[in-house]
Amino acid sequence: MAEFVVNPWEVRGNVDYEKLIKQFGTQHIDDKLLQRIKKHTGELHHFLRRKIFFSHRDMNWILDEYEKGNKFFLYTGRAPSGPVHVGHLVPWLFTKWLQDKFDVELWFQFPDEEKTLVHEDLTLEDTAKWTKENAYDVIALGFDPKKTHFLIDTLHAGLMYKEAMKVAKRITFSTAKAVFGFQGETNIGLIFYTAMQSVPAFLPSVLKKKNIPCLIPYAIDQDPHFRVARDVLPKIGYYKPAALHCVFLPGLGGILEQGKMSSSEEQTAIFTTDSPKTVEQKIVKYTFSGGRDTVAEHRKLGGNPDVDVSYQWLRFFEEDDKKLKQVHDDYTSGKLLTGELKQLLIRKLNDFLKDHQKKREKAKDQFEKFLYESKE
Amino acid sequence: MAEFVVNPWEVRGNVDYEKLIKQFGTQHIDDKLLQRIKKHTGELHHFLRRKIFFSHRDMNWILDEYEKGNKFFLYTGRAPSGPVHVGHLVPWLFTKWLQDKFDVELWFQFPDEEKTLVHEDLTLEDTAKWTKENAYDVIALGFDPKKTHFLIDTLHAGLMYKEAMKVAKRITFSTAKAVFGFQGETNIGLIFYTAMQSVPAFLPSVLKKKNIPCLIPYAIDQDPHFRVARDVLPKIGYYKPAALHCVFLPGLGGILEQGKMSSSEEQTAIFTTDSPKTVEQKIVKYTFSGGRDTVAEHRKLGGNPDVDVSYQWLRFFEEDDKKLKQVHDDYTSGKLLTGELKQLLIRKLNDFLKDHQKKREKAKDQFEKFLYESKE
Repeated sequence: MAEFVVNPWEVRGNVDYEKLIKQFGTQHIDDKLLQRIKKHTGELHHFLRRKIFFSHRDMNWILDEYEKGNKFFLYTGRAPSGPVHVGHLVPWLFTKWLQDKFDVELWFQFPDEEKTLVHEDLTLEDTAKWTKENAYDVIALGFDPKKTHFLIDTLHAGLMYKEAMKVAKRITFSTAKAVFGFQGETNIGLIFYTAMQSVPAFLPSVLKKKNIPCLIPYAIDQDPHFRVARDVLPKIGYYKPAALHCVFLPGLGGILEQGKMSSSEEQTAIFTTDSPKTVEQKIVKYTFSGGRDTVAEHRKLGGNPDVDVSYQWLRFFEEDDKKLKQVHDDYTSGKLLTGELKQLLIRKLNDFLKDHQKKREKAKDQFEKFLYESKE
Repeated sequence: MAEFVVNPWEVRGNVDYEKLIKQFGTQHIDDKLLQRIKKHTGELHHFLRRKIFFSHRDMNWILDEYEKGNKFFLYTGRAPSGPVHVGHLVPWLFTKWLQDKFDVELWFQFPDEEKTLVHEDLTLEDTAKWTKENAYDVIALGFDPKKTHFLIDTLHAGLMYKEAMKVAKRITFSTAKAVFGFQGETNIGLIFYTAMQSVPAFLPSVLKKKNIPCLIPYAIDQDPHFRVARDVLPKIGYYKPAALHCVFLPGLGGILEQGKMSSSEEQTAIFTTDSPKTVEQKIVKYTFSGGRDTVAEHRKLGGNPDVDVSYQWLRFFEEDDKKLKQVHDDYTSGKLLTGELKQLLIRKLNDFLKDHQKKREKAKDQFEKFLYESKE
């Protein structure tokens, strides 16, 4: 078994999600829970049907409260440091679905200081630019501006800093070191930062002066932050935030190579602003194939969809279960060649991106509408 | 030699200021520097004449720049956590004198989060109250509201947090640990806090978009913060702040007992709101005396002003050198008894406090005028 690393600042290797569930102490999203969710949503998002969202904390409690008439709010976010790739969209697409199905508010955090604390050369001026660029992608997904509030750490610090201090007071360096693996050379900004990431999980409760349940959909690498937040928030009078965890969309280079897609490896990432031509070239050239060495061999033995990145990506982007199954069966039997499978993915992605890019253009004058403005 | 401890959160024992100069790497305020200051101020404040301000960093550079027409600004502060005692006033009285003599701006920080991170039971609600109460004492000293700007960390975080992050990025945990003595149980808020204390040393430069020299008068226990700030600020494009350091006003209980007066030891501290009766009772009852056991013995051998707290306090509060010398000589010769010396101090303090309390009352509707309002 290959070694793997999963923490908020690094994902590497062939991630064993079962091991993470044990290690992080989370729960499987099992069929019973899926049925309970379906009772409210009418249908199940394909991310749930396919266990792309695979793990949770306290989701049953969220539904208990919801059924009592006590609505939760959603919280997710994006640490701006570069362009958005399609892997980033996964938790946001799901969050949008949750917002629609449960008719709830979303607080979306842009911690624009975080990555400047990790990357020597990244400045707050850089991340200010990326905050806007990234926000356009979020807006393009169709969130309701009346129910969606953007929090930008440096912009909303007047509101957030005070609350972060209440949390920071209750996290020792020993805890932070154990959870995040901090060392002597770690800077004191990064050591403190987790307190800021906890704030949106209770800020709506502060603002509305009542305790409101919080549900956070996120890729599992962010779990250390919320594990700490769950420890501290009850000590300052708020609920533990509940969580829904998704797996990572692998980079085009393959599941074994890269834990998740990375913006810094441009060739094996598809960005939301990539042209149809670029998408085609990247997929044709860089996508790891589960096919055989020759066509003859492939026809005879069939391909392996479990390691084929085009197929794995279709699990994320092809919503139709029947179509996906057909692809799976045809690829396994050898009927579908790798080149053909890549073309299916190229079409699927380019259709999605054509629409997304149009909406992203329109989003550019919507930014202010989503910014939370303190009424104080 | 008794052990002593001097750091931002603890001052204990018989402080050896010569040792601190060596340990912290600061410079003596020598006669040459005093004469240079006098060239600009016309006279020397009795805190300078008596080496109550005894140490500095880069004061010659501040005067170089000033003589070139490049004015500095002043920065000092108060971490609100309780009532102001007369020891707190020492650096502020001197700062007021500097503001008048050099006609410069003052940025006064109220880090209202700091002490909540040190004291388990102290909340941000408590310090919000003390911020106002303490600010009245600052205003009562007569600072010019047109040239004096209050910064309250949680209130001005919208302005300060972003700048603090630039500093925090450049301080490793190892450095913070070495300077402040942090342990595993130290909370991550306190570890980060020093970055916030550095911000007023360059915020005026940020706001005015030009590099302005900064001079910070403070009691020497705050030096670790500014040592770190001096290290980091040039790395982000700002001058190292210069410093003027004062000794501590001892508690009534004696120089050997208490490193500095402490608000938490109410009997041996004189608060700015104490009544004349309370001042008299505390001084009569608790002030450590350098006198002899009997009047006869005192008349014969004389008292010791070096350990007599009443005399030591008069060094801070009796501005007239001749009067002070008379007291010194009379006490040493045995002409002045301890009870009489105490009465001199009681009159001096009560005269000062009567005036201060009147001004403090008037200050209560001046608070807003001193609050820095972002023009952004």
